[in-house]
Amino acid sequence: MKKIVTVGGGTGSYTVLSGLKNLKNVCLYAIVSMADNGGSTRILRDELGVLPPGDVRQCLVALSEHTETVRKLMNYRFSDNGTLKGHSFGNILLAALEKVTGDFSKGVEVASEILKVRGKVVPVTRNQAELCALLPGGRRVCGHIEIGRTNLRKLGLKKIFYKQKVVLNDKARSALLKADYVLIGPGDYYESIVPNLIVSGFREAVGKSGARFILPVNLTNKKTHTKGWKASDYVRDIEEYLGRKVDIILINSESPSRAQVKRYKLKEGDGVLIEDDLGLDPRAVRKPLLSHLFFDHIRSFIRHDSEKVAKCVAEIIKKDSRKKK
Amino acid sequence: MKKIVTVGGGTGSYTVLSGLKNLKNVCLYAIVSMADNGGSTRILRDELGVLPPGDVRQCLVALSEHTETVRKLMNYRFSDNGTLKGHSFGNILLAALEKVTGDFSKGVEVASEILKVRGKVVPVTRNQAELCALLPGGRRVCGHIEIGRTNLRKLGLKKIFYKQKVVLNDKARSALLKADYVLIGPGDYYESIVPNLIVSGFREAVGKSGARFILPVNLTNKKTHTKGWKASDYVRDIEEYLGRKVDIILINSESPSRAQVKRYKLKEGDGVLIEDDLGLDPRAVRKPLLSHLFFDHIRSFIRHDSEKVAKCVAEIIKKDSRKKK
Repeated sequence: MKKIVTVGGGTGSYTVLSGLKNLKNVCLYAIVSMADNGGSTRILRDELGVLPPGDVRQCLVALSEHTETVRKLMNYRFSDNGTLKGHSFGNILLAALEKVTGDFSKGVEVASEILKVRGKVVPVTRNQAELCALLPGGRRVCGHIEIGRTNLRKLGLKKIFYKQKVVLNDKARSALLKADYVLIGPGDYYESIVPNLIVSGFREAVGKSGARFILPVNLTNKKTHTKGWKASDYVRDIEEYLGRKVDIILINSESPSRAQVKRYKLKEGDGVLIEDDLGLDPRAVRKPLLSHLFFDHIRSFIRHDSEKVAKCVAEIIKKDSRKKK
Repeated sequence: MKKIVTVGGGTGSYTVLSGLKNLKNVCLYAIVSMADNGGSTRILRDELGVLPPGDVRQCLVALSEHTETVRKLMNYRFSDNGTLKGHSFGNILLAALEKVTGDFSKGVEVASEILKVRGKVVPVTRNQAELCALLPGGRRVCGHIEIGRTNLRKLGLKKIFYKQKVVLNDKARSALLKADYVLIGPGDYYESIVPNLIVSGFREAVGKSGARFILPVNLTNKKTHTKGWKASDYVRDIEEYLGRKVDIILINSESPSRAQVKRYKLKEGDGVLIEDDLGLDPRAVRKPLLSHLFFDHIRSFIRHDSEKVAKCVAEIIKKDSRKKK
């Protein structure tokens, strides 16, 4: 039984976990960023003082072995006019459970039980965590959404940090320490990945972990955050946060369609596709990892394919265990 | 395996079901009134156009084999200021499920699965059902809450009816037809019991059912609705709705404490305790059925004890099957 930890939040973690949960003989731990403060999450957070449930909800849904209806329920957003408008049901569930159990982390455990979750979803921290960006000249931008809207690429970025002291959840530490494999990402770099890496105690736990670190490199850059970054930029930057080298770098070898590229370039400009500049780096594993799922009849999103990533991870595990023999 | 159907809603059904679910070799069906329009239920009903989830929620909780935390979650009411204020989580769950599945009845099935419900909770109807009372002189009072506030005892009551056509849910009919035992009540008479009996098709299904009908007579009268009613009044009135005689009448033989009686009399006046005037009626089964549970350190409520009622039903089943042999 191999212990696999994913680190991220939102859609990236959802994609990876949806595939990994079908692997046999693995035990999954999803470490999830708590820096989300958008939409329904923000309202619940402001009004009820609860931790942000959005990213956790997506991971719970990814790992749920319940029926499709229950998964739909978790993502259901009240759209009619009225007091519940805009709230996602899953966020309400997690907020209520935090209130009932008195602790977000315990609430997530109960939710996991209700949703028949395969694996554990572990909030990276139990503290309220407001993400900030320090820009040149000392200007600060605070809030997940606000950072999302700021052109860090143009203005420059000195540092991503938390306004308050935000320490690693004991359960996240324990998952990192006993992990066989840790996947960092994919996901929005400064909004889903980095918010985990900068939690106080994370780097230390990574240092003590005997796990192999796998980096599934993102497929696209976000214009305002990482425009023009190549694979090596991600590797270097993440290694700085981790304080160690990663062991395996998963690179997509498939080309997106022209229509896809055009669509992304329209929105994100040049430098949106992440170039593979790793050359002969022996850690690079190149595989076709692109999703060909259709959304609304258009093959529109450039995203990882859950099953392909999972297959790739399974091959790595197999290869490693052969080596040991 | 004996099939037991309960008919009611709210606290009364909750009490009976909490006990019955622990019996072995029984299959439970809780037929639940859909006339509730109070509080959180009313808001959801008005804003989202969903069926009233309140009474169903209580029955689901009663039959849930999940942890205490999940039961607490279902009854959790958001109390902080904010958009969710006053809503019970369970009501939000049922409203969301009605939206996701497109049908309240299907939503209840999914909720039952999530909550590991032992038995089936069956809404008496799938129609929107607004309860009305016709008073002498032709005045009408419409709405569950409004009827609750009206002194029917003083003004007189001609008829309880629905504003719209409200027909029996197929699943409720099927439960009645295959039932071995049907329990009518206990519960608020005009607010939880009668709203089931007047649904179009209910009386007909009762006529076709081969079940034995058990009537656990209420313990107290409601001043504005049934002040001064004795056991025989309930039996007679219910039999008129049913169009048949009941087979067994469960009567509590225990006296409530002086403090309890005083408390109830203060609020409800004389005639609050229901007098047993059934004399030698061979259908009367007299047992101690009173709850001695403490609420907030006071033995305050005059309520049925779940376990005692269940034990009594178990004895009836046992006796009946001995007779058959």
